[in-house]
Amino acid sequence: MTQSSSVLSGDRLALARLLTQVENDSAEGRAVLAELFPHTGKAHLIGVTGAPGTGKSSLVNQLALHFRRQDDKRVAIVAVDPSSPFTGGAVLGDRVRMRDLAGDSGVFIRSMASRGSLGGLAHATASMAQVFDAAGFDIVMIETVGAGQGEVDIAKLAHTTLVVEAPGFGDDIQAIKAGILEIADILVINKADRPGVENTEKALKSMLELAHPSQHVFMHHGRVIEVHRDPSPPRAAQSDKPIWLPPIQRTVATEGTGIAELAGSIAKHLAHLRQSGDWAARERAGLEVELDALIQEELVNRFRDEIPQKQYDEILGKVINRNLSPWEAVRVLMNGRVSPRRGGSGKTK
Amino acid sequence: MTQSSSVLSGDRLALARLLTQVENDSAEGRAVLAELFPHTGKAHLIGVTGAPGTGKSSLVNQLALHFRRQDDKRVAIVAVDPSSPFTGGAVLGDRVRMRDLAGDSGVFIRSMASRGSLGGLAHATASMAQVFDAAGFDIVMIETVGAGQGEVDIAKLAHTTLVVEAPGFGDDIQAIKAGILEIADILVINKADRPGVENTEKALKSMLELAHPSQHVFMHHGRVIEVHRDPSPPRAAQSDKPIWLPPIQRTVATEGTGIAELAGSIAKHLAHLRQSGDWAARERAGLEVELDALIQEELVNRFRDEIPQKQYDEILGKVINRNLSPWEAVRVLMNGRVSPRRGGSGKTK
Repeated sequence: MTQSSSVLSGDRLALARLLTQVENDSAEGRAVLAELFPHTGKAHLIGVTGAPGTGKSSLVNQLALHFRRQDDKRVAIVAVDPSSPFTGGAVLGDRVRMRDLAGDSGVFIRSMASRGSLGGLAHATASMAQVFDAAGFDIVMIETVGAGQGEVDIAKLAHTTLVVEAPGFGDDIQAIKAGILEIADILVINKADRPGVENTEKALKSMLELAHPSQHVFMHHGRVIEVHRDPSPPRAAQSDKPIWLPPIQRTVATEGTGIAELAGSIAKHLAHLRQSGDWAARERAGLEVELDALIQEELVNRFRDEIPQKQYDEILGKVINRNLSPWEAVRVLMNGRVSPRRGGSGKTK
Repeated sequence: MTQSSSVLSGDRLALARLLTQVENDSAEGRAVLAELFPHTGKAHLIGVTGAPGTGKSSLVNQLALHFRRQDDKRVAIVAVDPSSPFTGGAVLGDRVRMRDLAGDSGVFIRSMASRGSLGGLAHATASMAQVFDAAGFDIVMIETVGAGQGEVDIAKLAHTTLVVEAPGFGDDIQAIKAGILEIADILVINKADRPGVENTEKALKSMLELAHPSQHVFMHHGRVIEVHRDPSPPRAAQSDKPIWLPPIQRTVATEGTGIAELAGSIAKHLAHLRQSGDWAARERAGLEVELDALIQEELVNRFRDEIPQKQYDEILGKVINRNLSPWEAVRVLMNGRVSPRRGGSGKTK
């Protein structure tokens, strides 16, 4: 039995081995991934992003339990932690989670520490998700620490993106999430039993209005009760395409509160994706991110293979001594190889 | 008069124009930068990184005022804001700062929104710093929103890195700053008049011990009073090279409290860099980061120039239809050009 057919048949050991190969970006991993790729495209990829301290991991945990027990789905979790480029802090998380989800063959959890380059991270995450997809997992949750371009790229891999907040981060929520909010399909206020939850919801609501300026959102107890769009008609949303307005959901993950409602919102978003044609658009965007990340990584790898370390060090030495500007150095390094450029200087002209 | 000599002679208009050219990565900008590069290497590059809400911008503002008024230094500020890849939130900051620093020809402030790729961001920041360096600014402060590999790369450009915290972010400080702390030369607790400042300092102290495990740090009211190193001798630091132990400084930037002391720590760190030989090491590391970022960007640009959009779209279409795996797609795209690879498949073998 080949490794790819073992993975397709649900062999967990083969799956674990492949995930390691994929994370290490080994030649074996790439080969098996290529064989599995035609079997992908079925899983619902759910991105969950939020700052440390929002209880994001517990939330993912609880959602996984819900999808297992209520919906009988097979669930995989890919936890990406790029916040510690030096130490890689992804180990503890696994242990904590084991308690609730251990022994359930319908759940698979995998952590990934930073891989140095953000391009590398996006591509490794995409590959992991594909492995789980091919292996028959219905839902793949991709958990990331929010903020920064890298996480936005990872979020683009997902069909549905949850942005998790928690009360108590103060008024600064506006500044923190300005970019991240625009990728949110569902907003979650976790730890909603804490004081300040009303302020957090108010802040998120006004940010939603900033992020979706053509719509006026009216909410009541965390539910959207009315949507106005500019210009008129002022009362109801009118469009040829169904509009998705990110709902705000309150949860207390540690107690399981609000999890069923959140799962309901996720299911609604999935239905919206299918109806509106956005599923295909997101598939495309996700694969494009992955392809670009792969291209970038491959280009840099090839370049490093081709330039001898000694030559690189010599040129860097000249830059340090100010005998060569960084741009001139790049030009020297690029021309040292058989350059495939057409007709010369291109951008530097 | 050429543009580069105008910049060298202190022409602010020429400087502003060059900064724009450099930010846009134009051919003119690159050419002038190459001419200016031999004049760089003198400025003290100070990185200031911290989450939104820590009052980092006010702190940078106050430090700039101090360096101007007390030390008569010429000060430039490069504010990098990669937190909002969609909207680019760097405009407001400039206006707020104008009030205190406007009209002072020894100060120049420049904001930079995200440029999509983090490699691009690191390289643009490095270039900006070089322009200011060549133009005779003594101190260049590079302000970034902490967290993520991109900010770590930008921090590597600096000679001295300040990591800014504030009380009130709760116990989660450990998780937030695990990676960032390891790049800190000086830790700042801003908004130190807020409740919780003792806890923040305690948390930072224990994190410092984690980040510098061979040293036991004893502090009193924010000052290091004793350093133990493992293994013995247990009492005092013994090494052929002077050790720098990141001090923790409390400030209230809005009132100017602690700014002089912080500036004192920065001056001490500069002296340490010169004494220990770390100045040269950091120069090297910074230029290496810049060179690598430039190489990566140039490789991707060349690739995009060479592959017709139509061909790229066709291949992406095959990936979307699962007729081609992403890796196979990259291989096709790479072989479509005259590949400079030596002896074939390399990494994919």
